[in-house]
Amino acid sequence: MSYTDHIFTDYRRRVAELEASDNPFTKGIAYIAGEYVPLNEARIPILDQGFLHSDLTYDVPGVWNGRFFRLDDHLDRFEKSCAQLRLKSPLPRQEIRDRLVEMVAKSGIRDAYVMLIVTRGLRFVRQYAPEECDNFCYLMVMPYLWVMDEVTQKTGGTAVITRTVRRVPPGAIDPTVKNLQWGDFTRGLLEARDRGAMYPILTDGDANLTEGSGFNVILIKDGKLYTPKKGVLEGVTRKSVLAVAETLGYPYTIDDVPVELAYQCDEILFVTTAGGVMPITTLDGQPVGDGKVGPISKALWRGYWDAHADPSVSFAVHYEPA
Amino acid sequence: MSYTDHIFTDYRRRVAELEASDNPFTKGIAYIAGEYVPLNEARIPILDQGFLHSDLTYDVPGVWNGRFFRLDDHLDRFEKSCAQLRLKSPLPRQEIRDRLVEMVAKSGIRDAYVMLIVTRGLRFVRQYAPEECDNFCYLMVMPYLWVMDEVTQKTGGTAVITRTVRRVPPGAIDPTVKNLQWGDFTRGLLEARDRGAMYPILTDGDANLTEGSGFNVILIKDGKLYTPKKGVLEGVTRKSVLAVAETLGYPYTIDDVPVELAYQCDEILFVTTAGGVMPITTLDGQPVGDGKVGPISKALWRGYWDAHADPSVSFAVHYEPA
Repeated sequence: MSYTDHIFTDYRRRVAELEASDNPFTKGIAYIAGEYVPLNEARIPILDQGFLHSDLTYDVPGVWNGRFFRLDDHLDRFEKSCAQLRLKSPLPRQEIRDRLVEMVAKSGIRDAYVMLIVTRGLRFVRQYAPEECDNFCYLMVMPYLWVMDEVTQKTGGTAVITRTVRRVPPGAIDPTVKNLQWGDFTRGLLEARDRGAMYPILTDGDANLTEGSGFNVILIKDGKLYTPKKGVLEGVTRKSVLAVAETLGYPYTIDDVPVELAYQCDEILFVTTAGGVMPITTLDGQPVGDGKVGPISKALWRGYWDAHADPSVSFAVHYEPA
Repeated sequence: MSYTDHIFTDYRRRVAELEASDNPFTKGIAYIAGEYVPLNEARIPILDQGFLHSDLTYDVPGVWNGRFFRLDDHLDRFEKSCAQLRLKSPLPRQEIRDRLVEMVAKSGIRDAYVMLIVTRGLRFVRQYAPEECDNFCYLMVMPYLWVMDEVTQKTGGTAVITRTVRRVPPGAIDPTVKNLQWGDFTRGLLEARDRGAMYPILTDGDANLTEGSGFNVILIKDGKLYTPKKGVLEGVTRKSVLAVAETLGYPYTIDDVPVELAYQCDEILFVTTAGGVMPITTLDGQPVGDGKVGPISKALWRGYWDAHADPSVSFAVHYEPA
């Protein structure tokens, strides 16, 4: 029996129930231009600057076992990102919140990956001031996505520290403002694949770690956690995991993390909403520590998933009867 | 009478004719999923990775006075960009070329901004190898866009060298692979606007110039042209302008260009398909040279536009009768 079973067994049952349902939104639902549509039929204007210049911000809260997790943390960050880019959502925060809950309820999806996006809209900031642009808001709810699949979570994944690409520096594109400009991450994913691994970790080009393609990195050495401060998203999942570490009595620092520490540490975790706490047991083809999922990783994994039922950071969605 | 009149007077007449036409595509035409549609009705799937991770490349040839200009140069670069990103257009090169010509003819647009985009499609490279992804190709033809309007071209525009943002380095996102990840350019545009100017020039963070939001930069000092080599798009318009310079006997170098030279030079030009040769006469609030459009700028401007009729780099579109 794996340390993950108490979470995944129930999850598999819920997925099977969802797949057996005849709800038209079981594969996802989108809210676009005032209407709810099945996600795979959802379309946006090709002239949206969110496509034509990736001029947008977004966020991705999750729903687990019928409960929204840390939704307000995600909405807080989303509002900050919008302000930084001088975007103004046409839907106020409360309406976004209400609609997301409604969409989850409507879809019947118990374990959901939720995406809210605000784009610049049809006007280009080279020609118009931000206040002259009518921004668009798109909402999506879909079944939970796994950056690392369930089987791999039991034994740990494989990663490389990329040598063909570095992370975009914050002075160019600010990673704390959540964005979809994934050119560096995409290069990293291709390099990882070429080198027989699943995931890349990118450096800052100055011998420090940053993050990977959609996740924060946490190193564990001698019972202490290390995670990069600069050039990375200030992840909500990371915040949750550090809160668990604190409860369990593991100290942590958020600071520059030298690349070299990744080769010296005992355990490595990748953390993100779409996958939670993901142990990495092979780095650049060599075992991390003893090559097995370590004891602190397991403890954080359990603590992270158990927190999803904690009413101080989650709330239940009231689903319509099936 | 301005040095620009021989170009703009005829252009204005063609625009008036286009606007008087009842062709349904005068405001633009798109080719999506095998169909031609008016551009403002064109939609793409929200799940396209070209939107969700800006995982795409594109190019933008132009049509001037009914003639495609350097189309094969753009298609060459586009093919290189696709190869670099491991994208494969579902339409072969010859079909893209034929369709673009057909779309221009169908639209009746004599002066066009043309856009070809290949996106990753619906599959995410974190989960699928590039060869498992069915890529999408979108084509668009629309009336000519002007990065600098006609009035400003006569007297010159205003620019700043940004201090709140640097250009993304090539080791993170390669600017020679044309992309729509404009986070740094968008920040630059907002800074320029805040500082009362029209355009930003971004540096490489190491005291050298790179490029601006959609254009290459050329400095002119003592009769010689200087333009950055690294961290910039290898622009087709720049190539055209340098060819004109060569013909006119002005030497040029493509190399590192220190930021300081921008403050010491006699003339500054921005060059791009959507606007051609754009003189900058004010930098950081101070006049460039004597603050007027300089003699070499004017000569290059004329040479650039005259080249659009040259059959060695352009060809006529055969329009359908009105």
